[in-house]
Amino acid sequence: MDSSQFRTAAHSAIEEIANYYDTIAERPVLPSVSPGYLRPLLPDGPPEEGESWDKIQADIEKVIMPGLTHWQSPKYMAFFPCNASFPGLLGEMYSGAFSAAAFNWICSPAHTELETIVMDWVAKMITLPECYLSKGEGGGIIQGTASEVVVTAVVAARERLIRRRLAHMPESEEKLDKAAEMRGKLVALGSEHAHSSTQKAALIAGTRFRAVPAPRSSSFAVTASALRTTIDACIAQGLEPFYFTATLGSTATCAVDDFAGIATLTSDYPDLWIHVDAAYAGSALVCPEYQHLCAPLAAFDSFNFNMHKWLLTNFDCSAFFIKRRRDLIDTYSIAPSYLRNEFSDSGLVTDYRDWQIPLGRRFRSLKAWFVLRSYGVKGLRGFIRNHVNLGVLFHDLVAGRKDLFTVVTGPEFALTTFHVNPVPSSADAGGGGGGAANRPDARHEAWTNDFTRDAEAKYREDANEITKEVFERVNVQGEFFLTSTVLCGIYIIRVVSATPSAEERWLRRVFEVLVEKAEEVVGERGGKVREKL
Amino acid sequence: MDSSQFRTAAHSAIEEIANYYDTIAERPVLPSVSPGYLRPLLPDGPPEEGESWDKIQADIEKVIMPGLTHWQSPKYMAFFPCNASFPGLLGEMYSGAFSAAAFNWICSPAHTELETIVMDWVAKMITLPECYLSKGEGGGIIQGTASEVVVTAVVAARERLIRRRLAHMPESEEKLDKAAEMRGKLVALGSEHAHSSTQKAALIAGTRFRAVPAPRSSSFAVTASALRTTIDACIAQGLEPFYFTATLGSTATCAVDDFAGIATLTSDYPDLWIHVDAAYAGSALVCPEYQHLCAPLAAFDSFNFNMHKWLLTNFDCSAFFIKRRRDLIDTYSIAPSYLRNEFSDSGLVTDYRDWQIPLGRRFRSLKAWFVLRSYGVKGLRGFIRNHVNLGVLFHDLVAGRKDLFTVVTGPEFALTTFHVNPVPSSADAGGGGGGAANRPDARHEAWTNDFTRDAEAKYREDANEITKEVFERVNVQGEFFLTSTVLCGIYIIRVVSATPSAEERWLRRVFEVLVEKAEEVVGERGGKVREKL
Repeated sequence: MDSSQFRTAAHSAIEEIANYYDTIAERPVLPSVSPGYLRPLLPDGPPEEGESWDKIQADIEKVIMPGLTHWQSPKYMAFFPCNASFPGLLGEMYSGAFSAAAFNWICSPAHTELETIVMDWVAKMITLPECYLSKGEGGGIIQGTASEVVVTAVVAARERLIRRRLAHMPESEEKLDKAAEMRGKLVALGSEHAHSSTQKAALIAGTRFRAVPAPRSSSFAVTASALRTTIDACIAQGLEPFYFTATLGSTATCAVDDFAGIATLTSDYPDLWIHVDAAYAGSALVCPEYQHLCAPLAAFDSFNFNMHKWLLTNFDCSAFFIKRRRDLIDTYSIAPSYLRNEFSDSGLVTDYRDWQIPLGRRFRSLKAWFVLRSYGVKGLRGFIRNHVNLGVLFHDLVAGRKDLFTVVTGPEFALTTFHVNPVPSSADAGGGGGGAANRPDARHEAWTNDFTRDAEAKYREDANEITKEVFERVNVQGEFFLTSTVLCGIYIIRVVSATPSAEERWLRRVFEVLVEKAEEVVGERGGKVREKL
Repeated sequence: MDSSQFRTAAHSAIEEIANYYDTIAERPVLPSVSPGYLRPLLPDGPPEEGESWDKIQADIEKVIMPGLTHWQSPKYMAFFPCNASFPGLLGEMYSGAFSAAAFNWICSPAHTELETIVMDWVAKMITLPECYLSKGEGGGIIQGTASEVVVTAVVAARERLIRRRLAHMPESEEKLDKAAEMRGKLVALGSEHAHSSTQKAALIAGTRFRAVPAPRSSSFAVTASALRTTIDACIAQGLEPFYFTATLGSTATCAVDDFAGIATLTSDYPDLWIHVDAAYAGSALVCPEYQHLCAPLAAFDSFNFNMHKWLLTNFDCSAFFIKRRRDLIDTYSIAPSYLRNEFSDSGLVTDYRDWQIPLGRRFRSLKAWFVLRSYGVKGLRGFIRNHVNLGVLFHDLVAGRKDLFTVVTGPEFALTTFHVNPVPSSADAGGGGGGAANRPDARHEAWTNDFTRDAEAKYREDANEITKEVFERVNVQGEFFLTSTVLCGIYIIRVVSATPSAEERWLRRVFEVLVEKAEEVVGERGGKVREKL
C-alpha cells in the first residue's frame, strides 16, 4: 500500500469510524455471537498474495462488528467505562504514524519530553501534592493499565525495602541469600475490596498477600485502625508488610479508603510503600469538589488513575505518579552497552524504560495532550459532573422504589449498587401471616432493624437469589450491559453510566427494564408463594 | 469535537501523515534538540477552555516534529528497526475507535477470537511446531513487547516449578514458607548476549540471574555444552536453574543459539522452562530458507517475536506462543466475582487476561490481520529478502576495505558488525619500523595470526578507541543513526538497514560516510604517529 492508496483507504476508514459513532446507540451493546463464532468466517491462514483494502475493510462490518461489545455505547453500564473520544483517536493516529520503540530519550526526545510535561499538567489539574511533579524528585509516566502499574509499584516496594535493609552488605552470594530470605517474609496488603490486581501483583513479585477488612460498617473502606491491626498481626506472625494499595474508588462500590487516617500511620511504618489506586474515580479529581481527597497523598509513595476509564483518552493510558523517581530507577535500571549513550549517561534526560517493566514504549502522551487541549479543564469538569448528576438521578429512581429495591451504596462517582428485595418465602409467609408484614419494604425494614442472625442469613440468601435472577434477565434481554458482584456476601447489581454518549433517557430506560424484570420475578415468586399458602 | 468536526480533523491528519511518509527521507533522522527543549515551547498547564483542532494540529509540525527520531526513515540503521506500515496504521485507527479494556471474552468476543486466529495464522506462516497452535494445548497471544513477554515467561516458569514440587502440600503458611525458600534458590539463565530483559525479568521475579558464556569461538551463540556446564555449576552451588532464554538473533550480532543441541538437554532438565527470544530475527521465519530453525522449538516451552520490529506491524505487537497454555493460566488466573461470567465459567472461551500480567488489552490483532492480508505471505517474504540482500551488499562493501575495517559478524538477518582497524601507535611504529608492517591490513593479519596476548590486548584497545571515535563522528554528522556496542571486549559498529524505506543507495551512502570518517581519523592519527617518529 503506497501513500496514495493509504490516503484513499484511510479516508474511507475515517468515514466508517465516524458513522460507527453516529449510530452506536442503535447497535445492540452486547453481541449475540457464541464462543467460536469467528473461526468459520475466516480462512485457515494468511493469503499468499496481498488483498485489496476494499476487501479487507468490508470484513470489519461483516465479521468483526457482530462480535464487538460496544464500550462506547450509552447502553454500556458494566464494570467501569473505557472512554474514547475523537481527540484521543487522533492521538492514536499520530502515535501509530510515529511508530517507534522509544525506550531512551535519544530514541525520540519529543516522545519522552511531552510525556513528562503532560503528566505534570495532569498532576496540577487534579491537584496532586507538589512532590509528584517532575521539577522535584517525583514525576509522572504513562503506563498501559492500572494492573501493570500495581506490579511496577509492588516490585519496586519489595526491592526498596531490601536495598534499605541490606545497604551495609557488599554484593555477594550471601547478600543474595539474605535478600531471598527477606522476600520470603514479605506481605503485600490491600483492601478486601481492592482490585484483584494487587493480589496478582503480589503473586508476580513472589510475595504473600493479605486483605485488610473493609466491612459494611466502615462503608467498605479501609480505616487506619483496620490497616494497623492487619499490619501488626502480620508482624506478630514474623511477616513483614511492605506495600499497601489504598483505594480511591473500589471496583465494587467506589469506596474510598480513609486516606487522612492512613497517612498518620506512615511515620510508624516508614518502609511500607503506599500506592493509591484511583483507576476509575481518579478522573473526578479534575473537579474542585473532590480535590480535598488529594492532600493526604503527600504522605504516600505513588498514585495512579486511568485516563482511559473516565477521562476520554482512548485505551490505554494509565497515569502513574511517583514521589521519588529513584524508587523506580534504582529497581528497574539495567544499562547494557547497546542502550548507553551520551544523553542517558549525562543524567540530564529521563529514560522512561527505567520507570517500568517493559523496555519499549508507545507515544501515548499525544492522545492525552490532544484530549486536555480539546476539552480544556472546564470541558472535562463538565463531562465528569454530567455523569455524577446522572448517577444521582438513577440512584433516586432506585431509592424511590423501596418496595422492589434496596440501595446498598452510592451514588458514588456515578455508581449506584443495589439489590432486589426478596419475596416472602412460603415459610416466612406461614410464620408471619399474610398482610402488611409480607410487603417487601416492611420486610427490609425489619431486617435492618431487629432481625436475628438466622433471619438475616435467610433474608440475605433470598435477596441474593432474586437479585441474581433479575440481573440475569436484564442481561439476557440484551438492551443494556450491566455487571453484578458479591460484596461482603451481598449480591449486588452495579449501574454506572459514564460513557461519552450517556444521557438521562438511557438511565430512565435501564431503570424501566430493571423494574419490569424485578416485577416479573416478584410476580412469579409471589404467585408461587400464594399457591403454597 | 463532534463526528463532523472529527471527519474534518481526521482527514487533515491523514494528509499530514501521508505527507510525512512521502518526505521522511528528507528529514534529519535524529533531532538536533537539546534535553529540555520542549518545556519552554508549551504552557505550564492545560488550557481552561478547549482549543480548536487547527491550533492543536499546527503544533505537531511546530513542536513535536523537531524532537522526533524518525524510526521509519531509510537513514535509521540503529538498534533494530521498528517498522510501521499503512495497513498497520489503519489497524491502529480501528483499534483506537473500538477502544475497550476487553479483558474477558464477553468484553468483546471479536477482540479475543481474532487474536487467537491471527496468532494461529502467524504460527503456521513461520512453521512453528504444531504444539504452539491453539487447537491443541498451546496458542498465541499478542503482548506489548518482548521484554514484557520475558517477564511473563519467567514468572510462569518460577511458579510452574513450585507447583510441581509442592503439589503434595495442602495450602498453608507452611507451603508459602516452603515456596519462598524455593524461590530464593532459583536462577534464570540467558546467553551473555541475551537481551538485558532476561536479567531485568529475573530481578522482577525476585530470582537470581546467570549469564551463559557465548564466546567468539562459538560465534557468540550458546552451545548445549555451555548451557549444561552453567546449569551444573548452579546445581553444584545449591541453586536451581528454572528458566533459560534461548536467543534467535541476539541484540549485538544476531547470533542464534544452538537450538538443536539445547533441545537434547530438555530430558535431563525437565523443569527448565526454555523460552526463545526471536524479537527481531523471528520475522525472517516467514522465508523457507530460515525455517529449518523451527523444528527444535517443539522441545521448548515458549517462543516470541516482535511483529513490530521487522514485520510491518506498528508498535506494539509482540507475538508470544506457548506450548501449554495452562502453564500461564495456572499462574495468572485470579477470578474475583466481578470478573466472573457464564462464558468464562464454561471454560469454552479464552480469557487472555489469564495469559498475561496486565488485565486490560488493546485490540492489537486488527493491525496484524491487516498487515498479513495486505502483503500476503509472498509480500512479506519479499520484504524480508530485500533487507537480507541489502545486508549482504553492505557487508561486501565493508569487507572490500580490509585496510580500514574488519567485519566482526554478519551479514546475519541484515545486520553486519565491524570495527575500524587501528593506526599503528608510535610505540608500535618504533618497534616494527616504518613501511609495510605498519599498513593497517598487515597489522590486522598479524593480530589474527600470531599476536601475543599483550599485543592482542594493545591491538584491541587501539581498535576500540578508533572505532568509537569513528562511530561518534558519524553520529554527530547526523545523516544516519547507527548504534555501537561492546561485544566480548570488542567495540563494534552495528549497521542494520531494514525499514520499509530501505534502499541500496542509502547503504552505499552510509558506507561512504563511514569510509570518509574512518579515513579522516586514520589520517589524523597517522599524521601524529609520523610526527612522533
